[in-house]
Amino acid sequence: MFVTTARIMRPDDANIVGNVHGGTILKMIEEAGCIIGTRHCNTQPGDRCAAQLARVERTDFLYPMFIGEVAHVSAEITYASKHSVEVQVHVMSENILTGATKMTNRAALWYVPFSLEDVDNVTEVPPIKYASPGQEEEGKKRYEAQKMERLETKERNGELLMPVSAPDRTTKEPYTVGFSQSSLIHLVGPSDCTLHGFVHGGVTMKLMDEVAGIVAARHCKTNIVTASVDAINFHRKIMKGCVVTVSGRATFASNKSMEIEVFVDADPLIEAEKGKYRAVTAFFTYISLDKQGKPLSIPPMKLEGDGEQRRFEDGKMRYLQNKAKRLADKERQQ
Amino acid sequence: MFVTTARIMRPDDANIVGNVHGGTILKMIEEAGCIIGTRHCNTQPGDRCAAQLARVERTDFLYPMFIGEVAHVSAEITYASKHSVEVQVHVMSENILTGATKMTNRAALWYVPFSLEDVDNVTEVPPIKYASPGQEEEGKKRYEAQKMERLETKERNGELLMPVSAPDRTTKEPYTVGFSQSSLIHLVGPSDCTLHGFVHGGVTMKLMDEVAGIVAARHCKTNIVTASVDAINFHRKIMKGCVVTVSGRATFASNKSMEIEVFVDADPLIEAEKGKYRAVTAFFTYISLDKQGKPLSIPPMKLEGDGEQRRFEDGKMRYLQNKAKRLADKERQQ
Amino acid sequence: MFVTTARIMRPDDANIVGNVHGGTILKMIEEAGCIIGTRHCNTQPGDRCAAQLARVERTDFLYPMFIGEVAHVSAEITYASKHSVEVQVHVMSENILTGATKMTNRAALWYVPFSLEDVDNVTEVPPIKYASPGQEEEGKKRYEAQKMERLETKERNGELLMPVSAPDRTTKEPYTVGFSQSSLIHLVGPSDCTLHGFVHGGVTMKLMDEVAGIVAARHCKTNIVTASVDAINFHRKIMKGCVVTVSGRATFASNKSMEIEVFVDADPLIEAEKGKYRAVTAFFTYISLDKQGKPLSIPPMKLEGDGEQRRFEDGKMRYLQNKAKRLADKERQQ
Repeated sequence: MFVTTARIMRPDDANIVGNVHGGTILKMIEEAGCIIGTRHCNTQPGDRCAAQLARVERTDFLYPMFIGEVAHVSAEITYASKHSVEVQVHVMSENILTGATKMTNRAALWYVPFSLEDVDNVTEVPPIKYASPGQEEEGKKRYEAQKMERLETKERNGELLMPVSAPDRTTKEPYTVGFSQSSLIHLVGPSDCTLHGFVHGGVTMKLMDEVAGIVAARHCKTNIVTASVDAINFHRKIMKGCVVTVSGRATFASNKSMEIEVFVDADPLIEAEKGKYRAVTAFFTYISLDKQGKPLSIPPMKLEGDGEQRRFEDGKMRYLQNKAKRLADKERQQ
Repeated sequence: MFVTTARIMRPDDANIVGNVHGGTILKMIEEAGCIIGTRHCNTQPGDRCAAQLARVERTDFLYPMFIGEVAHVSAEITYASKHSVEVQVHVMSENILTGATKMTNRAALWYVPFSLEDVDNVTEVPPIKYASPGQEEEGKKRYEAQKMERLETKERNGELLMPVSAPDRTTKEPYTVGFSQSSLIHLVGPSDCTLHGFVHGGVTMKLMDEVAGIVAARHCKTNIVTASVDAINFHRKIMKGCVVTVSGRATFASNKSMEIEVFVDADPLIEAEKGKYRAVTAFFTYISLDKQGKPLSIPPMKLEGDGEQRRFEDGKMRYLQNKAKRLADKERQQ
Repeated sequence: MFVTTARIMRPDDANIVGNVHGGTILKMIEEAGCIIGTRHCNTQPGDRCAAQLARVERTDFLYPMFIGEVAHVSAEITYASKHSVEVQVHVMSENILTGATKMTNRAALWYVPFSLEDVDNVTEVPPIKYASPGQEEEGKKRYEAQKMERLETKERNGELLMPVSAPDRTTKEPYTVGFSQSSLIHLVGPSDCTLHGFVHGGVTMKLMDEVAGIVAARHCKTNIVTASVDAINFHRKIMKGCVVTVSGRATFASNKSMEIEVFVDADPLIEAEKGKYRAVTAFFTYISLDKQGKPLSIPPMKLEGDGEQRRFEDGKMRYLQNKAKRLADKERQQ
């Protein structure tokens, strides 16, 4: 079970220097995942159902993509539990003038089916065939690991439910968290949604990348590009007719990268009695580039107060863990 | 000199009830104006130049427009001063199934040419032919009146340069100004800009309508539609690569309509030394509709502090003046 | 040499009844063709070049596509002459809930490379490998046939260069050509263009389908869908910064379908001395559907004047020829 999509990158997909936004790529990845996940979950008799994005594993942006290149996105179902599927996605960039191709992203997404006919029906996922018993075993391990992490994040998420205050560049000094902090609101439109009135996970990720990118640019004042996105858990669906508030704040900066925490809150505009709720949180990492595309140093952050200090330490831990993991992966491959 | 554009209204042009956003219409109006203004200013030898929106006169949304209807926008140059042109625009909605047509908007826009070859060149506008000396006379009066008002607003605008704080629905009560206050940020993309790297006035107005609409919906919690826009002056150009912050707050509510003040601030992301600047301010008026499209009462505003009280009184004055003007126009037409 | 793209159909891709616009599909077809054509023409040393759409063969819309379905577009190079390539494209619709798939379109496009480095260089196309000598032979026949037709159309095209006047529903009776005649103008934006500043052929075809659809809806006052497009020749490139005027008029109506002629004129806005030019003309055929998607009769046209009568006769001939060709194809397949 396999799907491939491809599209030429246009000016609207990129920043003014020509680098395609990470959010554009995340949106393409999720569209491919949604197609194959929904297709698979409907390959059995019973209720028609839609695949809803539940989680995206940590993903790295290995190479930049540019306007005029073709992005090839291929998605494959690699594991099926009773109530979820894992979709692995590869993104290749192709320069159709020189013929050069590069793998720019690898991602793993988890989808959960929900019945379109009866909300209370629990939809089961059809099994898939594995190339070997070992492959199924590996998939099961990934499944258990992500399940655990989703539960943990749910709790952390609750704890963070205080509102993120507004950016303030009149009273805040450059390089403080308050200086670069940014929020946007977006009224959910028809093209943001699936046929059944829920916002595509990819649309949400694109908005998150947009805000995080503005925070990074305000801090660095240079051309910044998405380097990686931490695992993202989608706790609750966002419906048509919501206003979405997406807020970002810097949490950590190393010499060559900075981490931005992003919150997505959904606010039903008309049925306001349902109340505002936190739908997603995630960490995005950016690097800063000069005009030749060479990495630049990130200006050190000026921390204010215990909260910022604590978040900085947490971010540093994530940074060191990822670094260690990357090194281990490299060694294993050699 | 005349141009007519037409386009089918699509789902993304409208809210979930199917009413086309006022901002969509303002964007179409400005595009037609920009085409005819640019075309006229290049009908003489000399530097090639682009027409930049300087001002939009107060405009009323006379009838709603819906998805599937065709919007016809026709623009005509009606006055030319030495350095500016007035463009009058009519918008008709056509239901292509029933054949029913309605005039939904009439607008007047002022454009100023600027040289694309040498920034310091002052570009003169070619003269136009008038049907009668009286017509030229009338145009000149409108020209003088708007010139005066632009100067006045420039001063008022400076006075208003304090930042609009963030919406806060945890500490603010419903129906207060703080409760419905909203901001969005938008990273200017290539499609927002003219070929020469400046944001189309229509793009800015669409963002303004989007924020004002969210403020109105947060206050009313119903289907709201744009009823009118006060005269808007575009003091400074917004360049490619800026982040635009658009903020709105309720200023006045009568029984059947509410007024929202909108601020547009531009922030050069990379050349940050240029500093953030206020580019536009305007007042948008909204009405609230029930499911059958009948007008509903607006919940009264809860005012807090002297500033809100003062702005409410100012808004009331604008409201009464417009009402008186509308009555006078009606009588004159009879 | 092969490329596959896929995309979920969204509300903005369709009319209010949910039928995906023919123009959306033509745009996807052309994007796939442009990717594979450009890729192939750069598989040799020498100047980097871009593939420019020169012609689309007549194509039928075999089945409707709907919002929420996935469109799969696959493109393959099937013939290469010295200076052009033929790309054959298949479009499948997939209902990811039921698993049903249908072939909705088959199209053949001709691309011509042009050097991005030196306008005066004539770029040669690398040869392709054919599965059999017969295949090459067949391709050569198609090549010769389209070459002849392109020359012929060029002349017809010149003859038609009188401007299409504006629709006029105040003095024109329903069912006359004047009543349904329509024009739209569009300011070419960055996302309409290739990296090198030329409008994508697919963007132009989408605009053509939009205008033709408005003409058909005005005539029929029902849900109309694109049934086929006659061969389209792209005589001249349209550049960034142009205003495009697209006009359509009814030419012929049978009992079950109507034909609309569409003209595309490009007008350089700033370099106006270059003058307006006719870039493309084509014939689109529409059918009318009731609420259950069943075909309805087309109201007979009221013809006025010799020109309309002559064009009607010409349209009738095309209609009868296509009908005969379809019958012959069917018999050959049995």
